[in-house]
Amino acid sequence: MSDDFSKLCVHTITTKPWEIEVAMDKYAEAGIGGITVWRRWLEGRDIAKVGDRLRERNLEIVSLCRGGFFPHLSESDRLHAIDENKVIIDEAAAVGAPLVVLVCGADPGQPLEESRKQIVDGIAEIAPYAESSGVKLAIEPLHPMYADSRSAINTMQQANDAAEQIDSDFVGVAVDVYHLWWDPDLQTEIARCGSMDKIFAYHICDWKTPTVDLLLDRGLMGEGCIDIRRIRGWVEDAGFTGYNEVEIFSNIYWDQDQDAFLDKIVNAYKKFS
Amino acid sequence: MSDDFSKLCVHTITTKPWEIEVAMDKYAEAGIGGITVWRRWLEGRDIAKVGDRLRERNLEIVSLCRGGFFPHLSESDRLHAIDENKVIIDEAAAVGAPLVVLVCGADPGQPLEESRKQIVDGIAEIAPYAESSGVKLAIEPLHPMYADSRSAINTMQQANDAAEQIDSDFVGVAVDVYHLWWDPDLQTEIARCGSMDKIFAYHICDWKTPTVDLLLDRGLMGEGCIDIRRIRGWVEDAGFTGYNEVEIFSNIYWDQDQDAFLDKIVNAYKKFS
Repeated sequence: MSDDFSKLCVHTITTKPWEIEVAMDKYAEAGIGGITVWRRWLEGRDIAKVGDRLRERNLEIVSLCRGGFFPHLSESDRLHAIDENKVIIDEAAAVGAPLVVLVCGADPGQPLEESRKQIVDGIAEIAPYAESSGVKLAIEPLHPMYADSRSAINTMQQANDAAEQIDSDFVGVAVDVYHLWWDPDLQTEIARCGSMDKIFAYHICDWKTPTVDLLLDRGLMGEGCIDIRRIRGWVEDAGFTGYNEVEIFSNIYWDQDQDAFLDKIVNAYKKFS
Repeated sequence: MSDDFSKLCVHTITTKPWEIEVAMDKYAEAGIGGITVWRRWLEGRDIAKVGDRLRERNLEIVSLCRGGFFPHLSESDRLHAIDENKVIIDEAAAVGAPLVVLVCGADPGQPLEESRKQIVDGIAEIAPYAESSGVKLAIEPLHPMYADSRSAINTMQQANDAAEQIDSDFVGVAVDVYHLWWDPDLQTEIARCGSMDKIFAYHICDWKTPTVDLLLDRGLMGEGCIDIRRIRGWVEDAGFTGYNEVEIFSNIYWDQDQDAFLDKIVNAYKKFS
């Protein structure tokens, strides 16, 4: 148990029932230092002003979630994805987020190898635009249960390989314990990622037993089987000094009082992260 | 499309609503050559007589499902698992199944490495008993979404490593496309498994998009994103000549007329497997 939670960041999706105007006040009041903004919380708003209001509350904008979804059977869909990702980079620059997290995508109608090639091509295509905008991109490996349609990048090694191949200082990796805790090469590949200076983000939550929904049943830190402290040790040993971002999709928690949930997040962070 | 379905085997769990007395008649009438029996279909029955009745219908008993679940925090639970697996081997011998498929287990309260060690220790412990009973054991790697509590063996490489370490002619691997289709090293590790003469079983079904349940929403061959023919090619290139076992857990199909479902299985097998 540590009282230090200076590295705690919360994703706006984690407290989904709150509008961002509410979330920013609540996070700031709780003494939370970092916020990762999901795009839906920018819709219909003056994006630059949202950024100003976050900074006025001393909330550090850690990243914007999310870009990606590059692979498609049709070339026109792939080109559309490139355009869309440039818009997302613009949004990140406007709000003042230094990083866009990429859920890379997969098309169930084609082999994973083809989707992976389209992912590398797509990121390589937008990397110069990201660099000129001062916005970095993080490839987030997703759990293999999402390999059909959400990401063909399912291990830390695949993310490292893709980032290495793209070879831009603005393209790295987001390590999410939920997606990667089972990965037999996780420790080795985190070290490799660190040696490339490519650990751009670190996301936490927990894997519950049983898990009853493929998407919306993530656990609070300490509720599941992930040894979060051990993985945090690996990313810090690899040189990562950034925020620990709490990203929880949970119908159970979203149905509860969000003030009480935010208290639980801070306490669970201190105790298990 | 091939009319040859001489390699088709169906698991009794696939047509879960049918008692085994019904299933054996239906499979035989459909011209299906192989059956894999799940233990619950032996409960309360004279096991040797079930075997006789299956053979009278010219159904080849491909395997018994399932043993395993070796890892536990407590030693007494681990010892109990050893005893239970010997009972399962006895059942396989009694019904005339040459193989027991192992869902190896995992305890969410301990690291995956510890569960894996307990799996290897457990299988090594029962291997001589299996050999003296003339029953082989197949380590089935399970999808990483089951790593918390069902199996700490989640890739083909881990299964090969475990089988190699145990080093018994009676211990091999069951390749299931549902669990392994995403595995980046699948082709290489299937070849490796074949070179060790350890591909003991081959299970098929499909991964649907979207999949709405972690356990009970498997698809019929052709309904999803798995290139089953390609993986079948890999196992056959690696020397496998056994049955293609259809193992589908599906609330959707179990709610339907099972005669019509069995027709669909045969047709989907011919078209997509």
